[in-house]
Amino acid sequence: MAQPVTDDGLTTRQRRLRPVLMVHTGPGKGKSTAAFGTALRAWHQGWSIGVFQFVKSTKWRTGEEHALRVLGESSEGGSVTWHKMGDGWSWIRRPGTEDDHAANAREGWEQIKRDLAAETYRFYVLDEFTYPLTWGWIDLDDVLDTLANRPGNQHVVITGRDAPARLIEAADLVTEMGKVRHPMDAGQRGQPGIEW
Amino acid sequence: MAQPVTDDGLTTRQRRLRPVLMVHTGPGKGKSTAAFGTALRAWHQGWSIGVFQFVKSTKWRTGEEHALRVLGESSEGGSVTWHKMGDGWSWIRRPGTEDDHAANAREGWEQIKRDLAAETYRFYVLDEFTYPLTWGWIDLDDVLDTLANRPGNQHVVITGRDAPARLIEAADLVTEMGKVRHPMDAGQRGQPGIEW
Repeated sequence: MAQPVTDDGLTTRQRRLRPVLMVHTGPGKGKSTAAFGTALRAWHQGWSIGVFQFVKSTKWRTGEEHALRVLGESSEGGSVTWHKMGDGWSWIRRPGTEDDHAANAREGWEQIKRDLAAETYRFYVLDEFTYPLTWGWIDLDDVLDTLANRPGNQHVVITGRDAPARLIEAADLVTEMGKVRHPMDAGQRGQPGIEW
Repeated sequence: MAQPVTDDGLTTRQRRLRPVLMVHTGPGKGKSTAAFGTALRAWHQGWSIGVFQFVKSTKWRTGEEHALRVLGESSEGGSVTWHKMGDGWSWIRRPGTEDDHAANAREGWEQIKRDLAAETYRFYVLDEFTYPLTWGWIDLDDVLDTLANRPGNQHVVITGRDAPARLIEAADLVTEMGKVRHPMDAGQRGQPGIEW
């Protein structure tokens, strides 16, 4: 397929080196696994990777965290830094604990803002980041403004269901993961190696 | 959300340990990266991983191959074996070369059959495997029969566009990656760390 003709005055190399904002959303599986799969490519390029995990359970990303730790500590590829949003922070609301979770999410976002300003990483995974956005815990305007004005060549991938329309509009690459069939529909329980 | 009630007589543990056939299809990005992301979980479980790469370019999965090689050679997690379907095998048809490509694809499938029969691996990635199926290079009936009767507890993930309807029907977990927006639509070229 031919490339679309562009007259933006950029060379192919310049177009190759644009920072990319990716969003993986939708009800199906693969949103986070695809983000971590892309992180393997970033690691291979020798890029520094920052993971910001906006999820509840410690076991849900155990495999990915383990693998990226081993990769980051190897003598090859880029570095990996893994952040968890507050100890025991949960995106599942429990009565009486919402304020703490919201505060933890906002703390995580403030750290991301500092890192983007300082160009701490070349590749960011903001895992399950759509949930605190949807719930109003983190200000969408602030996120869009920060991402639009991030310096240098920092790539960002955001995962989670129900990405806000304005975030989708702002992204360079959006994939919607649709659920066609899931084993839990047939009574299958989550299992190690597949679900975590 | 409550689990659906089942009366299949299996314990939760038995249901957890069922072999899973996964299919990642659709026009969007993330089919292969999600497969390799899931492979990180398999590696974390200490499972042996066999990757069968039905793609053309050596650079397309360079990052994933590099990362999985380092993981497989580390002292942690499972082993990784990476197969490429014929040296220079291509899913892009070129005049006069189709027969060789078809033969190479069939050779790859025969190897997969032998490995499934021998339970060589616990987790299989059949990357871009839908293309030789679609083109009739590999017999779909043979694939469905082999997968349905594979022994033990071997998990298989198949990626590629336009997965045949009967393969989708046979799968336990199917995700359709939909393209919402891709940078190439705006003249962006593929770039290292993102596309490979």
